[in-house]
Amino acid sequence: MTPSPATPSPASSGQGPASAQGPADLLITGCTALVHDDHEGIAFVEDASIIVRGGVIEAVTGGASAVDAVERIDARGQVAMPGLINCHTHSPMVALRGIAEDLPAEEWFNDFIWPIESNLTDRDVELGARLACAEMIRGGVTCFADHYFSMDTVAAVVAESGLRAHLGEAYFSSQGTERGPEGREKSLEFALRHLGSADGRITTALAPHAPYTVDDADLAATAELARAHGLPVHLHASESRDQTDNSLARHGRTPIEILERTGILGTGTSVLIAHGTGIIERDLPVLERAAAAGSVAVATAPRGYLKFAWGTTPVRALREIGVPVGLATDGAASNNSLDVWESMALTSLVQKSTEGDPRWLTSRQALHHATLQSARAVGLGERVGSLAPGRRADIILVDLTGPHTQPVHDLAATLVHSARAGDVRTTIVDGRVLMRDRELLTLDLPSNVRELGERLPALIDRSHGKRIQEYDT
Amino acid sequence: MTPSPATPSPASSGQGPASAQGPADLLITGCTALVHDDHEGIAFVEDASIIVRGGVIEAVTGGASAVDAVERIDARGQVAMPGLINCHTHSPMVALRGIAEDLPAEEWFNDFIWPIESNLTDRDVELGARLACAEMIRGGVTCFADHYFSMDTVAAVVAESGLRAHLGEAYFSSQGTERGPEGREKSLEFALRHLGSADGRITTALAPHAPYTVDDADLAATAELARAHGLPVHLHASESRDQTDNSLARHGRTPIEILERTGILGTGTSVLIAHGTGIIERDLPVLERAAAAGSVAVATAPRGYLKFAWGTTPVRALREIGVPVGLATDGAASNNSLDVWESMALTSLVQKSTEGDPRWLTSRQALHHATLQSARAVGLGERVGSLAPGRRADIILVDLTGPHTQPVHDLAATLVHSARAGDVRTTIVDGRVLMRDRELLTLDLPSNVRELGERLPALIDRSHGKRIQEYDT
Repeated sequence: MTPSPATPSPASSGQGPASAQGPADLLITGCTALVHDDHEGIAFVEDASIIVRGGVIEAVTGGASAVDAVERIDARGQVAMPGLINCHTHSPMVALRGIAEDLPAEEWFNDFIWPIESNLTDRDVELGARLACAEMIRGGVTCFADHYFSMDTVAAVVAESGLRAHLGEAYFSSQGTERGPEGREKSLEFALRHLGSADGRITTALAPHAPYTVDDADLAATAELARAHGLPVHLHASESRDQTDNSLARHGRTPIEILERTGILGTGTSVLIAHGTGIIERDLPVLERAAAAGSVAVATAPRGYLKFAWGTTPVRALREIGVPVGLATDGAASNNSLDVWESMALTSLVQKSTEGDPRWLTSRQALHHATLQSARAVGLGERVGSLAPGRRADIILVDLTGPHTQPVHDLAATLVHSARAGDVRTTIVDGRVLMRDRELLTLDLPSNVRELGERLPALIDRSHGKRIQEYDT
Repeated sequence: MTPSPATPSPASSGQGPASAQGPADLLITGCTALVHDDHEGIAFVEDASIIVRGGVIEAVTGGASAVDAVERIDARGQVAMPGLINCHTHSPMVALRGIAEDLPAEEWFNDFIWPIESNLTDRDVELGARLACAEMIRGGVTCFADHYFSMDTVAAVVAESGLRAHLGEAYFSSQGTERGPEGREKSLEFALRHLGSADGRITTALAPHAPYTVDDADLAATAELARAHGLPVHLHASESRDQTDNSLARHGRTPIEILERTGILGTGTSVLIAHGTGIIERDLPVLERAAAAGSVAVATAPRGYLKFAWGTTPVRALREIGVPVGLATDGAASNNSLDVWESMALTSLVQKSTEGDPRWLTSRQALHHATLQSARAVGLGERVGSLAPGRRADIILVDLTGPHTQPVHDLAATLVHSARAGDVRTTIVDGRVLMRDRELLTLDLPSNVRELGERLPALIDRSHGKRIQEYDT
């Protein structure tokens, strides 16, 4: 592998004699390390060593390291980079991958997804979440922001899997036994109870579904709770241009303006907005004010937008006003996979096409979205997203020896446009190896797939005529 | 794996007692086979056996087969499908993967690709083509249509690799020592000499570059040669809307109309048009007449169009007038890979988005483009593109046991939207296994990558100020 000619800028030299502290927990050697320079530009350190101690990156050095380590990984021919972050998904929905294809969003929701979700049991959620975690570990995702139901179950699977996650229990204003106050209370109770669980790998958010399914009073009450408890909010908003147009027609306000009016946006609470393909010009000042306070980000999942024939997230406009845009897959029932590599490539490609500008959203920009901006989007901007001393050791090793990634003239382009999820050989979270040489170490996949398969007939039954919600924006 | 509920329609039952002929050459058992029904719809045969004899598919049967065979492949958990066909590429350009990123097409050609190509040697072409063949075999491509220089060298690599290919020696009207008549003569001589070589796996075409680089007199002479020798023509045309607009401004005719006027189109010669994103309404009657004679197809390579911020191939309009549209990657210098799986998924996604219709270009339609329409595009519509008795045994086995392809509610959607090139476990051409369990059996990759790497500095040198052509449409 011939790395790109980026100036090596070691993120740190060694941190004094290792012997003072005993052996490191993990030493990765011989890789090319993706680091960030002082201006958050992407740089590569050739023949790098990465020292991990106590779940934290101690140093990223150019050249060999003399440090002793309990575990060593020879990563020649591989790129070490921050683990990918899936900034918005519904992990258990992998159980519905392919169940409703080639449909407009309203039919997809009303005729398939929401009827089927009325059958969901905790066990379905558990099996789906475990399959999703397996897929994400195999694809180099080390952290995901999940927005779903039965989230206690998801939290337990996260703990088992070794992944990092940002979890929120979803609620509507009009859902069965958990509507309005009950749903909100459950979301709050979940968020408070699980914050910092799984050895600190789980963070939490309040998770109202969206402005079209949660009324203004419930949104305002949610904003109060968020402020009172210092919790972030993760929700869908302005998912499509149709939603924005309908919101304007019905309420005289865009979904983003509703978020401001109800105090979700603009009162200091950190807000993660999923999709935002319907964000329009008049929303930008609202978002710019929130961005100035560091309290809003958008997650983009471009594959599903193409599939639903929607527009895409206005990444360029958001960048100009300082809103971080993280990468996401949404659920696999619409996206068909939890492949953040594909989200990264499609973000670059679709942005070029939509803006009519081949120079925009370069590979290095795409990698910035995939690393620091995604970390910020899920509220972990100081903890992960960069291979730098003091950051949690969420690291993936990507094998570039395959014919589809050779030769390497521009390593950033190779990672964004040629590499695939299947090129990830090793996935590490908090210094713990969750996949080594493509072998999953924490999850038992075959038994999980078998049991899920047995449960599918009951899960996908729609004969009862129920649905958990109406799609009517 | 739970295949989709498509009605199994075995393409054939057994062909009488095997003992009469001795053992089959190859028997694949336990797979789900993708076949075509009588209306060319996609169907799946569960627990299928595929019998291969003399390089030809003898039978595809539901259930076990009692046939003796020299070689057996247990393909449980895998889908057998026709090998993918890359309908337009420049295989040796993998050597330039990532060399010129995030640029408009004119800078990409004039400042990088055409200066660099003035350095090309036969050895560079050989090493590039071998790397490309390795990538394609690993990605389940069994046949590719190549349009480049030093094609004798490419033909030799095709013979070595075991792949099938449709090859054409490219020429301009104004290129160095091979311009005009000399280039045309060389293209003809190549096409005649290599037709049917590599044990019949190589077919050939005349390969003028494009209407903007080959003048009308040379195009007309090419059309004459094609008719005289019964050869097809493979060329770029109407690559972008800008080309069409410029052609109209300069000549009063679109590129498609120039093809008609010069006798390339509409005189019975089979024509494979690369890209066609600039095809406009007035071109459709021209193409419809050619399609009625079965003599025109278009190859679409959607990734590069997004990257150059071009429009895309008007697949729906072409379908309505009966023009087959095959899938392609173009060269890796623009597309960054030779991944036809990605072309298939992007064709579906971009078509939905461009047409504003999520119901259009379903997974089954995408698979039809990838199989029979691609086979027709490269002139092999009767020989490959379907797992059916009498067709050449170009077969790939795709492993769907990975977490990203489970569960399977809709097998066509799984193949188009969830499966990846890396899920291909086995690639077979003419009944010969070229890759088994991801291991390449015909090509030595490491030595090829090493030598190519050594040659890159000389190859990419642009200090001489030369270029092989001007991009000025």
